Amino acid sequence: MTRYKAIIAYDGTNFFGFQRQNEGRTVQQELEKTLTRLNSGVEVTVHGSGRTDSGVHALGQVIHFDLNGKRSEEKLRFALDTQSPNDISVKSVEEVSENWHARYEKHEKTYIFRLDIGKTRSPFKRYYASFFPYPLDFEKMNQAIQKLKGTHDFSGFTATGTSVEDKVRTIYEAKMEHFPDEEELLFTFRGNGFLYKQIRNMVGTLIKIGNGKFEVERMDEILQSGDRNLAGATAHPEGLYLKEVRYVR
Amino acid sequence: MTRYKAIIAYDGTNFFGFQRQNEGRTVQQELEKTLTRLNSGVEVTVHGSGRTDSGVHALGQVIHFDLNGKRSEEKLRFALDTQSPNDISVKSVEEVSENWHARYEKHEKTYIFRLDIGKTRSPFKRYYASFFPYPLDFEKMNQAIQKLKGTHDFSGFTATGTSVEDKVRTIYEAKMEHFPDEEELLFTFRGNGFLYKQIRNMVGTLIKIGNGKFEVERMDEILQSGDRNLAGATAHPEGLYLKEVRYVR
Repeated sequence: MTRYKAIIAYDGTNFFGFQRQNEGRTVQQELEKTLTRLNSGVEVTVHGSGRTDSGVHALGQVIHFDLNGKRSEEKLRFALDTQSPNDISVKSVEEVSENWHARYEKHEKTYIFRLDIGKTRSPFKRYYASFFPYPLDFEKMNQAIQKLKGTHDFSGFTATGTSVEDKVRTIYEAKMEHFPDEEELLFTFRGNGFLYKQIRNMVGTLIKIGNGKFEVERMDEILQSGDRNLAGATAHPEGLYLKEVRYVR
Repeated sequence: MTRYKAIIAYDGTNFFGFQRQNEGRTVQQELEKTLTRLNSGVEVTVHGSGRTDSGVHALGQVIHFDLNGKRSEEKLRFALDTQSPNDISVKSVEEVSENWHARYEKHEKTYIFRLDIGKTRSPFKRYYASFFPYPLDFEKMNQAIQKLKGTHDFSGFTATGTSVEDKVRTIYEAKMEHFPDEEELLFTFRGNGFLYKQIRNMVGTLIKIGNGKFEVERMDEILQSGDRNLAGATAHPEGLYLKEVRYVR
Protein backbone atom coordinates (compact mmCIF):
# COMPACT_ATOMS: atom_id res chain seq x y z
CA MET A 1 0.00 0.00 0.00
CA THR A 2 1.32 3.40 -0.98
CA ARG A 3 -0.11 6.74 0.10
CA TYR A 4 -0.35 9.59 -2.39
CA LYS A 5 -1.03 13.27 -1.90
CA ALA A 6 -2.62 15.16 -4.80
CA ILE A 7 -3.42 18.79 -5.49
CA ILE A 8 -6.66 19.17 -7.38
CA ALA A 9 -8.81 21.96 -8.81
CA TYR A 10 -12.52 21.79 -9.45
CA ASP A 11 -15.32 23.89 -10.79
CA GLY A 12 -17.88 23.52 -8.01
CA THR A 13 -20.88 24.55 -10.14
CA ASN A 14 -22.17 21.06 -10.82
CA PHE A 15 -21.15 19.43 -7.55
CA PHE A 16 -23.08 19.06 -4.30
CA GLY A 17 -19.83 20.00 -2.60
CA PHE A 18 -16.69 18.00 -1.92
CA GLN A 19 -17.89 15.39 0.52
CA ARG A 20 -19.52 12.08 -0.29
CA GLN A 21 -23.28 12.03 0.33
CA ASN A 22 -26.27 9.98 -0.68
CA GLU A 23 -27.85 12.37 -3.12
CA GLY A 24 -26.07 14.34 -5.77
CA ARG A 25 -22.70 14.28 -7.41
CA THR A 26 -19.68 15.13 -5.24
CA VAL A 27 -15.97 15.63 -5.90
CA GLN A 28 -14.95 12.90 -3.45
CA GLN A 29 -17.23 10.31 -5.06
CA GLU A 30 -16.06 11.12 -8.58
CA LEU A 31 -12.41 10.80 -7.55
CA GLU A 32 -13.09 7.58 -5.64
CA LYS A 33 -14.79 6.10 -8.70
CA THR A 34 -11.78 6.87 -10.91
CA LEU A 35 -9.23 5.74 -8.32
CA THR A 36 -11.03 2.47 -7.65
CA ARG A 37 -10.83 1.75 -11.38
CA LEU A 38 -7.11 2.58 -11.36
CA ASN A 39 -6.72 0.31 -8.28
CA SER A 40 -7.94 -2.86 -10.06
CA GLY A 41 -11.43 -2.42 -8.63
CA VAL A 42 -10.32 -2.44 -4.99
CA GLU A 43 -12.21 0.38 -3.29
CA VAL A 44 -10.25 3.55 -2.60
CA THR A 45 -11.21 6.22 -0.06
CA VAL A 46 -10.29 9.84 -0.70
CA HIS A 47 -9.53 12.15 2.23
CA GLY A 48 -9.64 15.88 1.66
CA SER A 49 -8.04 18.68 3.66
CA GLY A 50 -11.62 19.68 4.43
CA ARG A 51 -14.98 20.02 2.73
CA THR A 52 -16.20 22.68 0.39
CA ASP A 53 -19.91 23.44 0.04
CA SER A 54 -22.17 23.04 -2.95
CA GLY A 55 -21.15 25.51 -5.69
CA VAL A 56 -17.83 26.41 -4.04
CA HIS A 57 -14.72 26.04 -6.22
CA ALA A 58 -11.16 24.88 -5.56
CA LEU A 59 -7.94 26.00 -7.20
CA GLY A 60 -5.76 23.96 -4.86
CA GLN A 61 -7.64 21.44 -2.70
CA VAL A 62 -5.39 18.73 -1.26
CA ILE A 63 -6.38 15.08 -0.92
CA HIS A 64 -4.70 11.82 -0.02
CA PHE A 65 -5.51 8.20 -0.84
CA ASP A 66 -3.89 4.76 -0.72
CA LEU A 67 -3.26 2.50 -3.71
CA ASN A 68 -1.96 -1.02 -3.95
CA GLY A 69 1.65 -1.02 -5.13
CA LYS A 70 3.83 1.84 -6.35
CA ARG A 71 3.10 4.04 -9.38
CA SER A 72 5.00 6.67 -11.27
CA GLU A 73 3.73 9.95 -9.84
CA GLU A 74 3.35 11.64 -13.23
CA LYS A 75 1.64 8.66 -14.84
CA LEU A 76 -0.76 8.45 -11.93
CA ARG A 77 -1.44 12.19 -12.14
CA PHE A 78 -2.09 11.96 -15.85
CA ALA A 79 -4.40 8.95 -15.52
CA LEU A 80 -6.38 10.46 -12.66
CA ASP A 81 -6.60 13.83 -14.43
CA THR A 82 -7.72 12.54 -17.79
CA GLN A 83 -10.05 9.85 -16.45
CA SER A 84 -11.82 12.19 -14.03
CA PRO A 85 -14.76 14.31 -15.24
CA ASN A 86 -13.57 17.52 -16.85
CA ASP A 87 -14.77 19.77 -14.06
CA ILE A 88 -11.99 18.23 -11.92
CA SER A 89 -8.31 18.59 -12.74
CA VAL A 90 -5.38 16.93 -11.04
CA LYS A 91 -2.43 19.30 -10.87
CA SER A 92 0.12 17.18 -9.03
CA VAL A 93 0.56 13.80 -7.36
CA GLU A 94 3.34 12.82 -4.98
CA GLU A 95 4.05 9.85 -2.78
CA VAL A 96 3.89 10.59 0.95
CA SER A 97 4.58 8.59 4.09
CA GLU A 98 1.96 6.08 5.17
CA ASN A 99 0.75 8.20 8.06
CA TRP A 100 0.54 11.52 6.26
CA HIS A 101 -3.03 12.92 6.42
CA ALA A 102 -4.47 15.74 4.28
CA ARG A 103 -6.73 16.90 7.09
CA TYR A 104 -4.82 16.22 10.31
CA GLU A 105 -1.39 17.33 9.15
CA LYS A 106 -0.97 20.91 10.39
CA HIS A 107 -1.85 23.38 7.63
CA GLU A 108 -2.93 26.88 6.66
CA LYS A 109 -5.69 27.51 4.16
CA THR A 110 -6.13 30.38 1.75
CA TYR A 111 -9.56 31.20 0.37
CA ILE A 112 -10.45 33.88 -2.14
CA PHE A 113 -13.87 35.36 -2.81
CA ARG A 114 -14.70 37.09 -6.12
CA LEU A 115 -17.39 39.75 -6.18
CA ASP A 116 -18.64 41.01 -9.56
CA ILE A 117 -19.50 44.69 -8.97
CA GLY A 118 -20.35 45.58 -12.58
CA LYS A 119 -23.62 47.35 -13.35
CA THR A 120 -24.53 44.30 -15.43
CA ARG A 121 -23.76 40.76 -14.36
CA SER A 122 -21.10 39.35 -16.66
CA PRO A 123 -22.37 36.10 -18.24
CA PHE A 124 -18.82 34.78 -17.92
CA LYS A 125 -18.86 35.21 -14.16
CA ARG A 126 -22.35 33.98 -13.38
CA TYR A 127 -21.02 30.76 -11.86
CA TYR A 128 -17.61 32.15 -10.86
CA ALA A 129 -18.26 35.32 -8.87
CA SER A 130 -21.01 36.60 -6.65
CA PHE A 131 -22.84 39.68 -7.99
CA PHE A 132 -23.41 42.96 -6.17
CA PRO A 133 -24.26 45.92 -8.45
CA TYR A 134 -24.97 48.45 -5.66
CA PRO A 135 -22.79 51.20 -4.16
CA LEU A 136 -19.91 50.11 -1.94
CA ASP A 137 -17.59 52.21 0.23
CA PHE A 138 -14.24 50.49 -0.31
CA GLU A 139 -12.54 52.53 2.40
CA LYS A 140 -14.95 51.28 5.07
CA MET A 141 -14.69 47.71 3.82
CA ASN A 142 -10.90 47.96 4.03
CA GLN A 143 -11.11 49.19 7.61
CA ALA A 144 -13.53 46.42 8.54
CA ILE A 145 -11.57 43.58 6.95
CA GLN A 146 -8.47 44.54 8.97
CA LYS A 147 -10.38 43.77 12.16
CA LEU A 148 -10.72 40.11 11.15
CA LYS A 149 -6.97 39.52 11.32
CA GLY A 150 -5.58 37.80 14.38
CA THR A 151 -6.90 35.22 16.83
CA HIS A 152 -10.61 35.48 17.58
CA ASP A 153 -13.61 33.40 18.55
CA PHE A 154 -15.46 33.40 15.21
CA SER A 155 -18.78 32.05 16.59
CA GLY A 156 -20.64 35.05 15.17
CA PHE A 157 -19.58 34.09 11.66
CA THR A 158 -20.38 30.39 11.68
CA ALA A 159 -23.65 28.65 10.87
CA THR A 160 -25.78 28.07 13.95
CA GLY A 161 -25.98 24.48 15.10
CA THR A 162 -22.48 23.55 14.02
CA SER A 163 -20.96 20.75 16.10
CA VAL A 164 -17.41 22.10 16.36
CA GLU A 165 -16.67 23.02 19.99
CA ASP A 166 -13.68 25.30 19.69
CA LYS A 167 -14.47 28.30 17.53
CA VAL A 168 -11.19 30.12 18.04
CA ARG A 169 -9.19 30.50 14.83
CA THR A 170 -6.35 32.69 13.62
CA ILE A 171 -6.45 34.73 10.41
CA TYR A 172 -2.96 35.68 9.23
CA GLU A 173 -3.96 37.59 6.13
CA ALA A 174 -7.22 39.35 5.23
CA LYS A 175 -7.31 41.78 2.34
CA MET A 176 -9.56 43.22 -0.31
CA GLU A 177 -8.37 44.28 -3.76
CA HIS A 178 -10.27 46.28 -6.35
CA PHE A 179 -9.77 45.50 -10.06
CA PRO A 180 -11.57 48.31 -11.88
CA ASP A 181 -10.99 46.88 -15.38
CA GLU A 182 -12.61 43.61 -14.35
CA GLU A 183 -15.27 45.40 -12.27
CA GLU A 184 -14.38 43.03 -9.49
CA LEU A 185 -13.48 42.91 -5.81
CA LEU A 186 -11.21 40.11 -4.67
CA PHE A 187 -11.11 39.10 -1.00
CA THR A 188 -8.27 36.94 0.31
CA PHE A 189 -8.24 35.15 3.67
CA ARG A 190 -5.41 33.01 4.97
CA GLY A 191 -5.72 31.30 8.31
CA ASN A 192 -5.08 28.18 10.37
CA GLY A 193 -8.63 26.98 9.71
CA PHE A 194 -12.10 28.32 9.03
CA LEU A 195 -15.47 27.41 10.51
CA TYR A 196 -18.46 26.25 8.49
CA LYS A 197 -19.64 29.18 6.29
CA GLN A 198 -17.26 31.54 8.11
CA ILE A 199 -15.81 33.16 4.98
CA ARG A 200 -19.15 33.62 3.25
CA ASN A 201 -20.54 35.18 6.45
CA MET A 202 -17.54 37.49 6.80
CA VAL A 203 -17.90 38.57 3.16
CA GLY A 204 -21.66 39.06 3.60
CA THR A 205 -20.93 41.32 6.56
CA LEU A 206 -18.26 43.27 4.64
CA ILE A 207 -20.79 43.88 1.85
CA LYS A 208 -23.34 45.25 4.33
CA ILE A 209 -20.68 47.55 5.77
CA GLY A 210 -19.66 48.71 2.29
CA ASN A 211 -23.27 49.34 1.35
CA GLY A 212 -23.86 51.44 4.49
CA LYS A 213 -26.26 49.02 6.15
CA PHE A 214 -23.81 48.36 9.01
CA GLU A 215 -21.13 50.59 10.57
CA VAL A 216 -17.49 49.48 10.50
CA GLU A 217 -17.71 48.84 14.25
CA ARG A 218 -20.23 46.07 13.66
CA MET A 219 -17.24 43.84 12.94
CA ASP A 220 -15.96 44.31 16.52
CA GLU A 221 -19.41 43.71 17.95
CA ILE A 222 -19.80 40.40 16.10
CA LEU A 223 -16.32 39.22 17.15
CA GLN A 224 -16.95 40.18 20.77
CA SER A 225 -20.51 38.95 21.17
CA GLY A 226 -20.32 35.85 18.96
CA ASP A 227 -23.88 36.71 17.93
CA ARG A 228 -24.66 35.35 14.44
CA ASN A 229 -27.71 37.62 14.23
CA LEU A 230 -25.48 40.69 14.03
CA ALA A 231 -23.67 39.47 10.90
CA GLY A 232 -24.72 39.93 7.28
CA ALA A 233 -26.38 37.31 5.10
CA THR A 234 -24.17 34.45 3.91
CA ALA A 235 -22.55 35.45 0.60
CA HIS A 236 -23.29 33.18 -2.37
CA PRO A 237 -21.12 30.07 -2.86
CA GLU A 238 -20.15 30.75 -6.50
CA GLY A 239 -17.76 33.52 -5.44
CA LEU A 240 -15.73 31.29 -3.11
CA TYR A 241 -12.56 29.38 -3.98
CA LEU A 242 -10.29 27.24 -1.82
CA LYS A 243 -7.07 28.60 -3.28
CA GLU A 244 -4.31 26.83 -1.40
CA VAL A 245 -3.59 24.43 1.44
CA ARG A 246 -0.11 24.97 2.80
CA TYR A 247 1.29 22.31 5.15
CA VAL A 248 3.44 23.77 7.89
CA ARG A 249 5.80 22.16 10.36
CA MET B 1 -40.93 53.51 -34.43
CA THR B 2 -37.59 54.12 -32.76
CA ARG B 3 -34.35 52.34 -33.57
CA TYR B 4 -32.00 51.27 -30.79
CA LYS B 5 -28.42 50.08 -30.86
CA ALA B 6 -27.27 47.81 -28.04
CA ILE B 7 -23.94 46.34 -26.98
CA ILE B 8 -24.33 42.84 -25.63
CA ALA B 9 -22.13 40.09 -24.21
CA TYR B 10 -22.92 36.40 -24.22
CA ASP B 11 -21.47 33.13 -23.09
CA GLY B 12 -21.72 31.09 -26.29
CA THR B 13 -21.47 27.69 -24.57
CA ASN B 14 -25.16 26.89 -24.63
CA PHE B 15 -26.07 28.62 -27.89
CA PHE B 16 -26.15 27.28 -31.42
CA GLY B 17 -24.51 30.55 -32.41
CA PHE B 18 -25.92 34.03 -32.81
CA GLN B 19 -28.23 33.64 -35.76
CA ARG B 20 -31.83 32.45 -35.73
CA GLN B 21 -32.29 28.89 -36.96
CA ASN B 22 -34.86 26.16 -36.78
CA GLU B 23 -33.14 23.87 -34.34
CA GLY B 24 -31.41 24.90 -31.16
CA ARG B 25 -31.29 27.95 -29.00
CA THR B 26 -29.68 31.08 -30.50
CA VAL B 27 -28.81 34.54 -29.16
CA GLN B 28 -30.92 36.32 -31.76
CA GLN B 29 -34.02 34.29 -30.94
CA GLU B 30 -33.67 34.78 -27.19
CA LEU B 31 -33.33 38.54 -27.62
CA GLU B 32 -36.24 38.69 -30.03
CA LYS B 33 -38.42 36.81 -27.55
CA THR B 34 -37.64 39.30 -24.78
CA LEU B 35 -37.96 42.35 -27.05
CA THR B 36 -41.29 41.22 -28.47
CA ARG B 37 -42.59 40.97 -24.90
CA LEU B 38 -41.28 44.49 -24.17
CA ASN B 39 -42.92 45.68 -27.44
CA SER B 40 -46.47 44.75 -26.36
CA GLY B 41 -46.30 41.49 -28.28
CA VAL B 42 -45.55 43.08 -31.64
CA GLU B 43 -42.77 41.04 -33.22
CA VAL B 44 -39.27 42.53 -33.12
CA THR B 45 -36.37 41.54 -35.37
CA VAL B 46 -32.82 41.76 -34.08
CA HIS B 47 -29.98 42.56 -36.49
CA GLY B 48 -26.43 41.77 -35.41
CA SER B 49 -23.14 43.18 -36.70
CA GLY B 50 -22.52 39.63 -37.92
CA ARG B 51 -22.93 36.04 -36.78
CA THR B 52 -20.90 34.09 -34.33
CA ASP B 53 -20.73 30.30 -34.48
CA SER B 54 -21.92 27.72 -32.01
CA GLY B 55 -19.84 27.92 -28.82
CA VAL B 56 -18.22 31.26 -29.75
CA HIS B 57 -18.52 34.03 -27.15
CA ALA B 58 -19.05 37.79 -27.35
CA LEU B 59 -17.81 40.51 -25.05
CA GLY B 60 -19.12 43.32 -27.26
CA GLN B 61 -21.46 42.19 -30.03
CA VAL B 62 -23.56 45.05 -31.46
CA ILE B 63 -27.20 44.72 -32.46
CA HIS B 64 -30.02 47.01 -33.52
CA PHE B 65 -33.81 46.68 -33.37
CA ASP B 66 -36.93 48.83 -33.69
CA LEU B 67 -39.54 49.37 -30.99
CA ASN B 68 -42.85 51.19 -31.04
CA GLY B 69 -42.55 54.54 -29.27
CA LYS B 70 -39.66 56.01 -27.32
CA ARG B 71 -38.12 54.51 -24.19
CA SER B 72 -35.62 55.67 -21.64
CA GLU B 73 -32.33 54.11 -22.79
CA GLU B 74 -31.30 52.97 -19.31
CA LYS B 75 -34.73 51.55 -18.44
CA LEU B 76 -34.77 49.65 -21.71
CA ARG B 77 -31.22 48.36 -21.09
CA PHE B 78 -32.17 47.21 -17.61
CA ALA B 79 -35.37 45.51 -18.77
CA LEU B 80 -33.69 43.74 -21.66
CA ASP B 81 -30.72 42.73 -19.50
CA THR B 82 -32.69 41.36 -16.59
CA GLN B 83 -35.41 39.70 -18.69
CA SER B 84 -32.97 37.95 -21.02
CA PRO B 85 -31.49 34.57 -20.03
CA ASN B 86 -28.47 34.98 -17.81
CA ASP B 87 -25.95 33.86 -20.42
CA ILE B 88 -26.73 37.13 -22.24
CA SER B 89 -26.01 40.53 -20.76
CA VAL B 90 -26.96 43.92 -22.17
CA LYS B 91 -24.21 46.43 -21.50
CA SER B 92 -25.63 49.55 -23.16
CA VAL B 93 -28.59 50.75 -25.20
CA GLU B 94 -28.77 53.97 -27.18
CA GLU B 95 -31.21 55.46 -29.62
CA VAL B 96 -29.88 55.74 -33.18
CA SER B 97 -31.24 57.20 -36.40
CA GLU B 98 -33.87 55.19 -38.25
CA ASN B 99 -31.48 54.09 -40.98
CA TRP B 100 -28.53 53.09 -38.78
CA HIS B 101 -27.64 49.42 -39.34
CA ALA B 102 -25.44 47.23 -37.12
CA ARG B 103 -24.15 45.25 -40.08
CA TYR B 104 -24.02 47.71 -42.99
CA GLU B 105 -22.65 50.69 -41.12
CA LYS B 106 -18.88 50.70 -41.74
CA HIS B 107 -17.06 49.04 -38.84
CA GLU B 108 -13.95 47.29 -37.60
CA LYS B 109 -14.12 44.13 -35.54
CA THR B 110 -11.78 42.88 -32.84
CA TYR B 111 -11.67 39.20 -31.96
CA ILE B 112 -9.61 37.53 -29.28
CA PHE B 113 -8.73 33.87 -28.98
CA ARG B 114 -7.71 32.31 -25.66
CA LEU B 115 -5.47 29.23 -25.65
CA ASP B 116 -4.99 27.31 -22.40
CA ILE B 117 -1.42 25.98 -22.59
CA GLY B 118 -1.27 24.49 -19.08
CA LYS B 119 -0.11 20.91 -18.61
CA THR B 120 -3.55 20.19 -17.16
CA ARG B 121 -6.73 21.68 -18.60
CA SER B 122 -8.13 24.15 -16.12
CA PRO B 123 -11.72 23.20 -15.24
CA PHE B 124 -12.49 26.94 -15.16
CA LYS B 125 -11.43 27.37 -18.77
CA ARG B 126 -12.99 24.27 -20.29
CA TYR B 127 -15.70 26.32 -22.02
CA TYR B 128 -13.71 29.56 -22.22
CA ALA B 129 -10.38 28.72 -23.82
CA SER B 130 -9.12 26.13 -26.27
CA PHE B 131 -6.59 23.66 -24.82
CA PHE B 132 -3.16 22.84 -26.23
CA PRO B 133 -0.78 21.21 -23.72
CA TYR B 134 2.07 20.51 -26.20
CA PRO B 135 5.31 22.42 -26.88
CA LEU B 136 5.01 25.74 -28.73
CA ASP B 137 7.74 27.96 -30.14
CA PHE B 138 6.42 31.43 -29.30
CA GLU B 139 9.10 33.15 -31.37
CA LYS B 140 8.01 31.40 -34.56
CA MET B 141 4.34 32.06 -33.81
CA ASN B 142 5.14 35.75 -33.35
CA GLN B 143 6.92 35.85 -36.69
CA ALA B 144 4.04 34.08 -38.43
CA ILE B 145 1.27 36.23 -36.94
CA GLN B 146 2.94 39.39 -38.25
CA LYS B 147 2.46 38.09 -41.80
CA LEU B 148 -1.32 38.21 -41.40
CA LYS B 149 -1.35 41.98 -41.01
CA GLY B 150 -2.34 44.07 -44.01
CA THR B 151 -4.64 43.56 -46.99
CA HIS B 152 -4.76 40.00 -48.31
CA ASP B 153 -7.04 37.55 -50.06
CA PHE B 154 -7.85 35.25 -47.13
CA SER B 155 -9.38 32.43 -49.22
CA GLY B 156 -6.94 29.93 -47.71
CA PHE B 157 -8.32 30.60 -44.24
CA THR B 158 -12.03 30.41 -44.91
CA ALA B 159 -14.30 27.39 -44.95
CA THR B 160 -14.64 25.83 -48.38
CA GLY B 161 -17.98 26.38 -50.06
CA THR B 162 -18.61 29.80 -48.55
CA SER B 163 -20.78 32.02 -50.74
CA VAL B 164 -18.95 35.32 -50.17
CA GLU B 165 -17.35 36.42 -53.47
CA ASP B 166 -14.76 38.94 -52.35
CA LYS B 167 -12.30 37.37 -49.93
CA VAL B 168 -9.99 40.36 -49.62
CA ARG B 169 -9.88 41.79 -46.11
CA THR B 170 -7.55 44.04 -44.13
CA ILE B 171 -6.12 43.14 -40.73
CA TYR B 172 -4.93 46.22 -38.84
CA GLU B 173 -3.71 44.48 -35.73
CA ALA B 174 -2.58 40.89 -35.13
CA LYS B 175 -0.71 39.99 -31.98
CA MET B 176 -0.04 37.18 -29.58
CA GLU B 177 0.58 37.67 -25.85
CA HIS B 178 1.84 35.12 -23.36
CA PHE B 179 0.53 35.19 -19.79
CA PRO B 180 2.71 32.71 -17.91
CA ASP B 181 0.82 33.01 -14.60
CA GLU B 182 -2.43 32.10 -16.33
CA GLU B 183 -0.69 29.52 -18.55
CA GLU B 184 -2.42 31.17 -21.46
CA LEU B 185 -1.79 32.59 -24.91
CA LEU B 186 -4.03 35.44 -26.04
CA PHE B 187 -4.40 36.23 -29.74
CA THR B 188 -5.90 39.54 -30.85
CA PHE B 189 -7.08 40.34 -34.39
CA ARG B 190 -8.58 43.65 -35.47
CA GLY B 191 -9.73 44.11 -39.05
CA ASN B 192 -12.35 45.51 -41.38
CA GLY B 193 -14.09 42.16 -41.54
CA PHE B 194 -13.37 38.45 -41.25
CA LEU B 195 -14.49 35.52 -43.39
CA TYR B 196 -16.37 32.50 -42.08
CA LYS B 197 -14.02 30.56 -39.71
CA GLN B 198 -11.08 32.77 -40.75
CA ILE B 199 -9.83 33.47 -37.24
CA ARG B 200 -10.13 29.88 -36.06
CA ASN B 201 -8.25 28.73 -39.17
CA MET B 202 -5.53 31.36 -38.68
CA VAL B 203 -5.13 30.28 -35.03
CA GLY B 204 -5.10 26.62 -36.04
CA THR B 205 -2.28 27.38 -38.46
CA LEU B 206 -0.34 29.40 -35.86
CA ILE B 207 -0.57 26.43 -33.48
CA LYS B 208 0.85 24.08 -36.13
CA ILE B 209 3.70 26.51 -36.75
CA GLY B 210 4.38 26.83 -33.02
CA ASN B 211 4.35 23.06 -32.62
CA GLY B 212 6.85 22.60 -35.48
CA LYS B 213 4.43 20.86 -37.86
CA PHE B 214 4.62 23.79 -40.32
CA GLU B 215 7.40 26.28 -41.07
CA VAL B 216 6.81 30.00 -40.54
CA GLU B 217 6.78 30.44 -44.34
CA ARG B 218 3.64 28.34 -44.58
CA MET B 219 1.74 31.52 -43.70
CA ASP B 220 2.97 33.22 -46.90
CA GLU B 221 2.15 30.14 -48.96
CA ILE B 222 -1.45 30.03 -47.72
CA LEU B 223 -1.94 33.76 -48.32
CA GLN B 224 -0.47 33.52 -51.82
CA SER B 225 -2.11 30.30 -52.98
CA GLY B 226 -5.48 30.65 -51.24
CA ASP B 227 -5.29 26.90 -50.69
CA ARG B 228 -7.31 25.83 -47.63
CA ASN B 229 -5.54 22.47 -47.60
CA LEU B 230 -2.28 24.13 -46.61
CA ALA B 231 -3.75 25.64 -43.42
CA GLY B 232 -4.04 24.02 -40.00
CA ALA B 233 -7.20 22.49 -38.54
CA THR B 234 -9.89 24.93 -37.42
CA ALA B 235 -9.25 25.86 -33.77
CA HIS B 236 -12.05 25.09 -31.31
CA PRO B 237 -14.87 27.62 -30.93
CA GLU B 238 -14.71 27.93 -27.12
CA GLY B 239 -11.50 29.99 -27.35
CA LEU B 240 -13.00 32.66 -29.60
CA TYR B 241 -14.59 35.94 -28.48
CA LEU B 242 -16.02 38.81 -30.52
CA LYS B 243 -14.49 41.52 -28.36
CA GLU B 244 -15.53 44.78 -29.97
CA VAL B 245 -17.30 46.26 -32.98
CA ARG B 246 -16.08 49.78 -33.62
CA TYR B 247 -18.09 51.91 -36.08
CA VAL B 248 -15.91 54.19 -38.16
CA ARG B 249 -16.74 57.14 -40.39
